[in-house]
Amino acid sequence: MDNIVTEKRAEESHRQDSADLLIFILLLTLTILTIWLFKHRRFRFLHETGLAMIYGLLVGVVLRYGIHMPRDGTNVILNCNVNASPATVTFDPEVFFNILLPPIIFHAGYSLKRRHFFRNMGSILAYAFLGTVISAFIIGLLMYGTVTLMKHVGHLAGEFFFTDCLFFGAIVSATDPVTVLAIFHELQVDADLYALLFGESVLNDAVAVVLSSSIVAYQPAGDNSHTFEGMALLKSFGMFLGVFSGSFSLGVATGIVTFTKLRDFQLLETALFFLMSWSTFLLAEACGFTGVVAVLFCGITQAHYTFNNLSPESQDRTKQLFELLNFLAENFIFSYMGLTLFTFHNHVFNPMFIVGAFLAVFLGRAANIYPLSLLLNLGRRHKIRSNFQHMMMFAGLRGAMTFALSIRDTATYARQMMFSTTLLIVFFTVWICGGGTTQMLSCQRIRVGVDSDQDNSGPERRSTKQESAWLFRIWYNFDHNYLKPILTHSGPPLTATLPPCCGPLARFLTSPQAYENEGQLKDDDSDLILTDDINLAYGDITVNTDASGVHTSSAGFASGMMSDDLDRELAYGDNEVVMRGTRLVLPMDDSEPPLKDPHF
Amino acid sequence: MDNIVTEKRAEESHRQDSADLLIFILLLTLTILTIWLFKHRRFRFLHETGLAMIYGLLVGVVLRYGIHMPRDGTNVILNCNVNASPATVTFDPEVFFNILLPPIIFHAGYSLKRRHFFRNMGSILAYAFLGTVISAFIIGLLMYGTVTLMKHVGHLAGEFFFTDCLFFGAIVSATDPVTVLAIFHELQVDADLYALLFGESVLNDAVAVVLSSSIVAYQPAGDNSHTFEGMALLKSFGMFLGVFSGSFSLGVATGIVTFTKLRDFQLLETALFFLMSWSTFLLAEACGFTGVVAVLFCGITQAHYTFNNLSPESQDRTKQLFELLNFLAENFIFSYMGLTLFTFHNHVFNPMFIVGAFLAVFLGRAANIYPLSLLLNLGRRHKIRSNFQHMMMFAGLRGAMTFALSIRDTATYARQMMFSTTLLIVFFTVWICGGGTTQMLSCQRIRVGVDSDQDNSGPERRSTKQESAWLFRIWYNFDHNYLKPILTHSGPPLTATLPPCCGPLARFLTSPQAYENEGQLKDDDSDLILTDDINLAYGDITVNTDASGVHTSSAGFASGMMSDDLDRELAYGDNEVVMRGTRLVLPMDDSEPPLKDPHF
Repeated sequence: MDNIVTEKRAEESHRQDSADLLIFILLLTLTILTIWLFKHRRFRFLHETGLAMIYGLLVGVVLRYGIHMPRDGTNVILNCNVNASPATVTFDPEVFFNILLPPIIFHAGYSLKRRHFFRNMGSILAYAFLGTVISAFIIGLLMYGTVTLMKHVGHLAGEFFFTDCLFFGAIVSATDPVTVLAIFHELQVDADLYALLFGESVLNDAVAVVLSSSIVAYQPAGDNSHTFEGMALLKSFGMFLGVFSGSFSLGVATGIVTFTKLRDFQLLETALFFLMSWSTFLLAEACGFTGVVAVLFCGITQAHYTFNNLSPESQDRTKQLFELLNFLAENFIFSYMGLTLFTFHNHVFNPMFIVGAFLAVFLGRAANIYPLSLLLNLGRRHKIRSNFQHMMMFAGLRGAMTFALSIRDTATYARQMMFSTTLLIVFFTVWICGGGTTQMLSCQRIRVGVDSDQDNSGPERRSTKQESAWLFRIWYNFDHNYLKPILTHSGPPLTATLPPCCGPLARFLTSPQAYENEGQLKDDDSDLILTDDINLAYGDITVNTDASGVHTSSAGFASGMMSDDLDRELAYGDNEVVMRGTRLVLPMDDSEPPLKDPHF
Repeated sequence: MDNIVTEKRAEESHRQDSADLLIFILLLTLTILTIWLFKHRRFRFLHETGLAMIYGLLVGVVLRYGIHMPRDGTNVILNCNVNASPATVTFDPEVFFNILLPPIIFHAGYSLKRRHFFRNMGSILAYAFLGTVISAFIIGLLMYGTVTLMKHVGHLAGEFFFTDCLFFGAIVSATDPVTVLAIFHELQVDADLYALLFGESVLNDAVAVVLSSSIVAYQPAGDNSHTFEGMALLKSFGMFLGVFSGSFSLGVATGIVTFTKLRDFQLLETALFFLMSWSTFLLAEACGFTGVVAVLFCGITQAHYTFNNLSPESQDRTKQLFELLNFLAENFIFSYMGLTLFTFHNHVFNPMFIVGAFLAVFLGRAANIYPLSLLLNLGRRHKIRSNFQHMMMFAGLRGAMTFALSIRDTATYARQMMFSTTLLIVFFTVWICGGGTTQMLSCQRIRVGVDSDQDNSGPERRSTKQESAWLFRIWYNFDHNYLKPILTHSGPPLTATLPPCCGPLARFLTSPQAYENEGQLKDDDSDLILTDDINLAYGDITVNTDASGVHTSSAGFASGMMSDDLDRELAYGDNEVVMRGTRLVLPMDDSEPPLKDPHF
């Protein structure tokens, strides 16, 4: 009989789970229908994520107050009884990290606009790494001040260590790439501002997750001394670097390894691509690295190399697949956020802490953006203007990553207070800052409706080549001349880029398609994936193919042109074939004609 | 400190989970690469599912014998300690039912070739419903004989009730639509045989899952009397009907409700389609029905109605998405099957039971196919020839559904013996029957390389119209003239099919696109989705649009032509516009010209 009871209970819980999931699916359906209505009417004050949160809130209110349920004592910290009451919808927090975040982060990496990203790489790295660490520490210190004050006043009902403050600083420093950038994309805001914000918010997710886990890992060591220690900080920093570089190299490695040649069977190709991306995540997690970070760099690498090997059908398929997964995961997270505000049982809303946190988040963001912009402007020829700085300050929304990090562990009093406060910060930034983006843009007189491709041909563009630092330029050349030809079917044949003495090796490594691709210019979707891949560079010759298919070749002048050419190549790319380098070797020694164009 | 230990353990188990999943992903990757090699070399003896099983087996052997692990006693029935040894990779059996099966079954329904399916509907329903029940009972009875014999000989080490035997009969009666049909599809086998086998194996999955759950539900009632009772059988049968019709109507209802008009936003459309399909599953499960059955009929209905409302991009996207999900889930299940043969701890291999089961499965299949074919041939003008019958007999592979049903509960001795035996049956049928399909086809002299569209124009085709029974014909007309125009943008405008008195209502319900679609003939992918949707039927007039775009109209002769027309409509459909019925009403009363063709 025991068996039967267990079975019945399992069946009951299964039904409950199905009903819970159903609620979310209906929420998402509702969100989709409303988004459609909004898009139809070109209503832009509320992004879909904000909408998902509102619907989540409403359902939360219904579940909390509409369905009457006996509450057994208030504020009892019982992390396991969340399923006891019928009106609670909960998921294992790990679901967020292992199922919902990876597609979001991968998609962010896969759809990175590499052209503007690379042009602003230095600034992006500065904001994402240095800026996030600064912001985390500023917020951590300010919160420690707040907590100490609270303790003195007697508003603190539990323990709150300095490491907790630092942890809070780390998790709320992760800005969200979703909401503002969707609006930016729609309004076609200045591409440099877009690249700065997107690059920063994608990368600082990675920084925040590694930073917070380093802080957690450091915490248990000083069991009864949660105080600040220089040595432990260094150790934590070392761990940060280790995990980050491990995840980074793993992601890059698997991104490169996904070297598919199954062009004839699109289903197999897409499946393989999907599996390799997922295995990156799992491999990193199994190794103790951070899967989300690995998946981010895997996405970037795959967009750079693997994407060129895919058949056009698979390029579409993979883009669409990850777009869909990203959309579903994102809206799921945001509607769950809305739901938890009313259904989470262990909320600790402390007014003083909340006010302190909002202030700290504001100051932390300011300490990230303004001083760094000042420093960066010293080195940049194309300055980050003050209206861009204000916009970046304003656009620091907190979203999915912050939420996922804060819900991961809600066992202690400190963590519960953090979770409740984080929720409010996310709501505030998504609704107020997200909703006010359009107003802020016009208030700051930032150009909208800019076609990023046209924009770059202006004289202003040239001045940004300062950004392409020499280190980056060396890497770029190496990548373009050697890595791409080896790893993908695009790019110049190796026979052209390697010294003549390596001829046989070059011929062995060059795929037949590289020759075929030479004259053929793909009509890529430049919105999602950068099109600079289709540039062919060899020798000192610039070949332009304009829309009418006319070929014009001109010999380059000197190697001093190089950085300019690089810049041009990064900027155009759609219908221009740039050849550069110092050798004038055309692949004449091969049987294929060098610039075969089917139209001739 | 307790907290930290728990956290460490959770982290450890998370890493283990990641590593487990990673193993599967690498298995799938290996499978994909090998399939690609096979396809490249046109090697057909082993289907991808068979291959996935082999790789699974190999990894299982390595995990079992390669990695040394201490075994704590043999054959100890501990269902919970499966994670104790480091070399075991296990998943919650419910994963199969809630995550892996739904996409497979949905895809089967969504990609059903409706034209041939409807033409052979009577036979398919007979095989699937009557045949599966017959097969389940024959196998159940034979196994009961075997078990009784085993008890007498003393080979039975535990309890094995009659209901267990029936349960076994039910689960091994589910034939698998995957392996054989992939080969059939590739070889372009006779479309009627394809339809019979596909329809039967898709529907009998649904029958088997409901039948087995009815048996389980009936079991606890007679707690100490697991014997055969007429009353209980009736109750079980009633439950079967209830669950089946509940699931059926739920699936059909949600399939119809998914009435999307978001044609401009493909991402939203695809997301909505995906969510509605998933919610069908969850809703059915939450109601206590069978999600898999609901999802099957939801798929069929969506292919029939919703598909026509989608934008062309979304049609592609949804097809590709479910194709991918199906591919991944299928290969995952089959490689897991291979793995469990060596890594499952509680195998009970009883030679006598195994021999009995193989015999029973063979006889059960024979008792399904041959007598039913005999009966059906009495009513069919286009007989099911004996070589078709042998082929159907041979092609009764057992696959994902049988496995999922048998692994769902392995707590008792009887269930463990069933699971082990089922595994062997699946291996045998997939490898031997699946691998021998090509040989069997040529041995039975069954035509291959038949273009299903050309095939139907022969005189032979006409004789199959007997299949379109009057009940089906009535439904078809109702569906075509009223349901389709209301629910989709395709089909004739309601203004043409409704009596003139309903004019205003008809105009209200007809979407503007229905008029636009009138003369426009889509170039559909007839392989996946039946193209008869684009026929326009109203009045007694047959309008042919041949390839050169010439319109020829001819008045119908009598309503006696009707069944012939219906048949023709089911058969062609690509470039023919058939008008039939008893009224000669053309939609002249509307502002749109009746047969607007953009080419004129």
